[in-house]
Amino acid sequence: MKREEEEFSRQVTALDVAKHAGVSRSAVSRTFTPGASVSASTREKVMKAADELGYRVNQLARSLINKRSDLVGIVAANMDNPFRAQQVEHMARELVEQNFRPILLPAEGEENPSRVIGMLLEYNVSGVIVTSDTPPQSICQECVSLGVPMVLINKGEIDASVDRVLLDNETSGRIAARHLYDKGCRQLASIGSDKPSYSLSVRVKSFQAACKELGMNAPGHFSAPISDYNGGFTAAEAMLRDMPDVDGAFCITDYMALGSLDYFRLRSDRKVPDDLKVIGCDDILQASWAGYDLTTIRQDTRLLAKQVVGALTARFKNPLAPPDIRMVDVSVVERATTKTS
Amino acid sequence: MKREEEEFSRQVTALDVAKHAGVSRSAVSRTFTPGASVSASTREKVMKAADELGYRVNQLARSLINKRSDLVGIVAANMDNPFRAQQVEHMARELVEQNFRPILLPAEGEENPSRVIGMLLEYNVSGVIVTSDTPPQSICQECVSLGVPMVLINKGEIDASVDRVLLDNETSGRIAARHLYDKGCRQLASIGSDKPSYSLSVRVKSFQAACKELGMNAPGHFSAPISDYNGGFTAAEAMLRDMPDVDGAFCITDYMALGSLDYFRLRSDRKVPDDLKVIGCDDILQASWAGYDLTTIRQDTRLLAKQVVGALTARFKNPLAPPDIRMVDVSVVERATTKTS
Repeated sequence: MKREEEEFSRQVTALDVAKHAGVSRSAVSRTFTPGASVSASTREKVMKAADELGYRVNQLARSLINKRSDLVGIVAANMDNPFRAQQVEHMARELVEQNFRPILLPAEGEENPSRVIGMLLEYNVSGVIVTSDTPPQSICQECVSLGVPMVLINKGEIDASVDRVLLDNETSGRIAARHLYDKGCRQLASIGSDKPSYSLSVRVKSFQAACKELGMNAPGHFSAPISDYNGGFTAAEAMLRDMPDVDGAFCITDYMALGSLDYFRLRSDRKVPDDLKVIGCDDILQASWAGYDLTTIRQDTRLLAKQVVGALTARFKNPLAPPDIRMVDVSVVERATTKTS
Repeated sequence: MKREEEEFSRQVTALDVAKHAGVSRSAVSRTFTPGASVSASTREKVMKAADELGYRVNQLARSLINKRSDLVGIVAANMDNPFRAQQVEHMARELVEQNFRPILLPAEGEENPSRVIGMLLEYNVSGVIVTSDTPPQSICQECVSLGVPMVLINKGEIDASVDRVLLDNETSGRIAARHLYDKGCRQLASIGSDKPSYSLSVRVKSFQAACKELGMNAPGHFSAPISDYNGGFTAAEAMLRDMPDVDGAFCITDYMALGSLDYFRLRSDRKVPDDLKVIGCDDILQASWAGYDLTTIRQDTRLLAKQVVGALTARFKNPLAPPDIRMVDVSVVERATTKTS
């Protein structure tokens, strides 16, 4: 701890920033003290000067080193998705474990970016964790430019200086194709959403590439507006209508797979797994329920939470380190929906 | 706002407390300033004096009136239960809406009470919302005695000075009995858990009372260790084994109902709704899925969240008001599992 402080003290000082900004030393201090009062115009001057001198990030880091217990925002939408709810719970648990205070910031898919940015600034969070469905890239970029340490989960690269934790989506798609192939399926399709997130589009692309490498026909792709239960239900309907010979389906999320399975059972004459095998992705709790018993690709949300908080902690300690990309492994969990008779 | 401050200023002052405690005026101020440094022994002296003079609560209220945006803890466990995840999301949303910062405090069912109390104190939350599964009454009582405003959701009375928001569990049980009766069922049973929470045991008792009033046989009751999907599955098995003539079942949560429905479909020859009608309670998202299509008793989590935050806000404004008990109405949502042919 001492050594790190000395390291920072060799760099730009608050006095340097104050002189550069034409404000008092105390105004600089208040700008960087969470909760302290400072006028918008003063804050702007200080931030500009700090930015030009490369000061601010160090200060944020110092305050975190000196005062470990702090606020970390979790931006999350769509908690009706069991995978998301599980992610948020494990993340909050891990943050508490590491002496942070997790602030839950519920966001809509189409959230007003300025409102979210306002929240983050007003709340003086020391760091932000952004789950994959939220928020738009513009928000992330703005946070980064404001110097708020941020970890993105399962999102595409948006700025060279952002840490990310990715589930191994590339491998997920490949495993799905390989598993269905090994189970004897040859007419494959994927079920996804019209506006896939980064992680979901990677899953589809790698699934398609693997099908090609395995010498199969190009797989069909059927999508719905939203990657939820109802989306899986309607995409399954489109698949059976437009690709009647399909014998293996990869649903890009378990949440969609549940809807697809219910469609096959309730509205079609196809029996899973005899006529049609289904594999999902995530391993949400419902996948293990007797009513679904879904073969899936497990994404360990506990491990994910550890990696996310680990990346954030590392960033607090070393704000100037190059961006950290961490990958969380995946594996198949074989259940009834891909059983061979 | 002015008027409320004047009202407080007529009461005991910080100086009174300082004299009574034998400490400085500043020590009293620091004790009541979130995040300020004060020794444990000084804090204890101040709290004791404040308690004896009735000072503390007013100070907390004043700091909240002056500084509206603040931290509110949401203590929640079992977010695998979709009802809980939905509750937490709506509560966080409502808190943000009202300019509070929602801190998510994940708790296990068997949480170490002193750890949770430590968290709440360390985090300097201005208020706490406690969901029904957590935490033990001992924690609640300690928070109350420490003067942290608290709202309990769906929990039994634990202290005369605690605000509570209750779903109308009494009516839920009655509605369930009446609905099954109206659909022609006469051999009723309830499915619940071995260690029911306050809200769940009220549902069962009122269901039993209503059955009696309607002139039916005393209903059977079958329970599992935990009120989740697997619990519903195993309790359904016990019910069909021990009460083969059952024709109507009330599952005290939708989460259990999903497991029961899957048991009937996959492991028994009973057809729902022809042989056996099922009604749940909560109206979680899954109840509306085509695969379940469950008749249930709707508990509006959005309205619940509004009532909870409303009760907390009222308490901040008027710390000395008598405890506020708010009730959220319930209503039947009729779907396929109780259809008559």
